[in-house]
Amino acid sequence: MSETEFTTRLESARKDVEACLDRLLGPEPLEGETARPETLMAAIRHGVLNGGKRFRPFLVIETTRLLGGPADAALRVAAALECIHCYSLIHDDLPAMDDDDLRRGRPTVHTAFDEAAAILAGDSLLTLAFDIIADDATGLDPVARLALVSALSRAAGIGGMAGGQALDLAAEKTPPDEAGIVTLQAMKTGALIRFGAEAGAIIAGAGADARARLARFGAVIGLAFQLADDLLDLRADAETMGKATGKDAGRGKGTLVSLHGPAWAERRLTELVAEAEALLSPFGARAATLIAAARFVASREN
Amino acid sequence: MSETEFTTRLESARKDVEACLDRLLGPEPLEGETARPETLMAAIRHGVLNGGKRFRPFLVIETTRLLGGPADAALRVAAALECIHCYSLIHDDLPAMDDDDLRRGRPTVHTAFDEAAAILAGDSLLTLAFDIIADDATGLDPVARLALVSALSRAAGIGGMAGGQALDLAAEKTPPDEAGIVTLQAMKTGALIRFGAEAGAIIAGAGADARARLARFGAVIGLAFQLADDLLDLRADAETMGKATGKDAGRGKGTLVSLHGPAWAERRLTELVAEAEALLSPFGARAATLIAAARFVASREN
Repeated sequence: MSETEFTTRLESARKDVEACLDRLLGPEPLEGETARPETLMAAIRHGVLNGGKRFRPFLVIETTRLLGGPADAALRVAAALECIHCYSLIHDDLPAMDDDDLRRGRPTVHTAFDEAAAILAGDSLLTLAFDIIADDATGLDPVARLALVSALSRAAGIGGMAGGQALDLAAEKTPPDEAGIVTLQAMKTGALIRFGAEAGAIIAGAGADARARLARFGAVIGLAFQLADDLLDLRADAETMGKATGKDAGRGKGTLVSLHGPAWAERRLTELVAEAEALLSPFGARAATLIAAARFVASREN
Repeated sequence: MSETEFTTRLESARKDVEACLDRLLGPEPLEGETARPETLMAAIRHGVLNGGKRFRPFLVIETTRLLGGPADAALRVAAALECIHCYSLIHDDLPAMDDDDLRRGRPTVHTAFDEAAAILAGDSLLTLAFDIIADDATGLDPVARLALVSALSRAAGIGGMAGGQALDLAAEKTPPDEAGIVTLQAMKTGALIRFGAEAGAIIAGAGADARARLARFGAVIGLAFQLADDLLDLRADAETMGKATGKDAGRGKGTLVSLHGPAWAERRLTELVAEAEALLSPFGARAATLIAAARFVASREN
């Protein structure tokens, strides 16, 4: 698959996911909700409808398609996953955490609104993600919906993304060794990307083997994503990224790139792409989009 | 039921819930979790195992018992609900929110640890609540577990507790009218208490009528709880509460008590207890504990 074809697919998924998020974040309260406070909704929408690439949702959509699962269910689960990702960005940007004023060139939620609004917007999005998956509108059978709730909560919580952010903040004080960096990154970035790929297998009702294979594919993509990110951090300047860079290094956080150098990182990225391709080889030509996604992640420039 | 008998029941539920929370917040990662970071776990445990009365869990346990549902499932759902309640206290205490250094006479999480730890502890607990309910160990059929995930997410999220906290912060700048106060309180305090009572009906697999009746009972208890709280705020001093009081009034927030006076509030509490009793009258003597709970809420002194 050419890079142009891949970019078209990614863009198409992005539009679908944003339209879905726009609907889910409408002003009307759902059954069981009392009201949707206007300012809170504005803060939430600011933090969600913000020009993201929607890569994690794309993984849900494409892994579901690969396995012949229902596209409408995939779209909703994709939107739920993006709610979790956006909540984590909103909270991570807070002054007490990474203290960023800008994200993708726009004011972060606590800058555009205030810290309380950012905390509550994140809390609301995290809560909403589980509502979206559990809802009958997802159209999946109850066992599949529960499996998604379980897998997403473990990917996002103590032993996944939130725990990874805690380790990341601790790393500023005590630099971790290589094993520590690997654990931190697997939790902070890897767990949610892994879930994105595994979710397709759950949505499609695939067997344990296919689910494990997709999860492994997601984990490999996650490693490549983080490595490419660390390379970018090393190289990019603040203008091209639209956010402060060099910060991770400046704060004394170790990354695998700072430990082994950019040449090692480039070699490792090539290996990871090969591993991702090997994992999807049983699916033949149908896996072309996901293989292109692995290449895209490894070679991205922003 | 005598007050002593009731207090014994409440205390027994409290012990069971704390033992369950202690197990759920253990150091070992679950399947699908990479690790449970030590400092994060300590912050979470500080915010959860903190001497709370566990009134919301008590409602889950007793409404389940009333309808003949499984006690072990009720205990787990009760613990999940308490995770949500504790997350909300941890986040509400943050400097950007209500800015409290003490809770029940002990340092709040951001005081004992730091703000980042408090934000992440709250996020982790919120996420864990859905994990607990969705888990097979809950022992409920998948449809019931999904109904609990849906009801809890709506009670806790944008249109419930989190939205209510947003309205509460806005009320410091623009005092709401009576209807605004009622909406704010129904969301901030009422929604989670209402869920506590409704959850028993879901766990027991009760029909729509019983579920609606229990939910209404929970809403009435929630109103009484808030009214008693506002009365306490008016009367208590900082020593007996173990937290700053008079704060809500001091910040210019209106409550129904400040609007109508304590004598009106006492009359209204009597009405609410009578309404709670009437709602449970079809259950006869079996409802004695829950009726005692309504009286306890209305007359509590801390």
